[in-house]
Amino acid sequence: MSTAITLAAAADAERVLALMARYHEEAQLPHDDTHRATVAGPLLDGSPLGAIWLIGPSRAPLGYVMVTFGWSMPHGGLIGWLEEVFIRPSVRGRGIGTEVLHAVTVNLQRADLRAMHVFLPSDDAGLVRFCTRTGFRAVRTPTLMTDPL
Amino acid sequence: MSTAITLAAAADAERVLALMARYHEEAQLPHDDTHRATVAGPLLDGSPLGAIWLIGPSRAPLGYVMVTFGWSMPHGGLIGWLEEVFIRPSVRGRGIGTEVLHAVTVNLQRADLRAMHVFLPSDDAGLVRFCTRTGFRAVRTPTLMTDPL
Repeated sequence: MSTAITLAAAADAERVLALMARYHEEAQLPHDDTHRATVAGPLLDGSPLGAIWLIGPSRAPLGYVMVTFGWSMPHGGLIGWLEEVFIRPSVRGRGIGTEVLHAVTVNLQRADLRAMHVFLPSDDAGLVRFCTRTGFRAVRTPTLMTDPL
Repeated sequence: MSTAITLAAAADAERVLALMARYHEEAQLPHDDTHRATVAGPLLDGSPLGAIWLIGPSRAPLGYVMVTFGWSMPHGGLIGWLEEVFIRPSVRGRGIGTEVLHAVTVNLQRADLRAMHVFLPSDDAGLVRFCTRTGFRAVRTPTLMTDPL
């Protein structure tokens, strides 16, 4: 492991939010600054519902990983959702993502995480390959229903 | 609303676990008493990762609802997962489930829940109908991948 990861805290908010804005723009997600601050803020403040790690030097990070947490009867306790991963375009293709996801997973196993899930767009073969390389396996996808409150 | 719901706490553990055992037996889920206590215990003790409600008189409950919580960038904050619903066979078919899910949803909206999700076995049309009646809509299901740690 040559790329350090650091759990982001409130003091890192500006750097985290700047990277998130770049990711959301690249991924064409509609979130604005207020939305990002509302969601990331509690995680940077230590909410038990998720965590954000900065990749590389925390003063000049190369990217970030955002994991949210859940609780599962089938898995017998704490689970994680890989919610966002972003690596600056200039340092892509060097295996940093794979390395960093492995490090996050090792950290979370120590915190007794039972499983990590990820939702992927069904047609994104590149992302499926990336996740397979880091230990994810496709599972028979059940029907997902949502009640938008 | 004629059927009361009560947030279950540590003092309700025995009643909750007995109902869960009946549900898991009926649904042919492999969980044993230890597994159930491990998962339900923290929620009864006030974990922010989920909640269990008893249906009807809390001394002689008719069933329970278990919701786990999550945190979501797309939804902008707190989300819920409808994890388990059980109603005693002798009082089924009276609309209690629909009524109770509505009450749980109203409660959680007050706690600023943004959306409730549920995973259903794709072939269970009865469950899909039940969830549709209570406000859930099928969404285009993405690919789900899991890293079993």
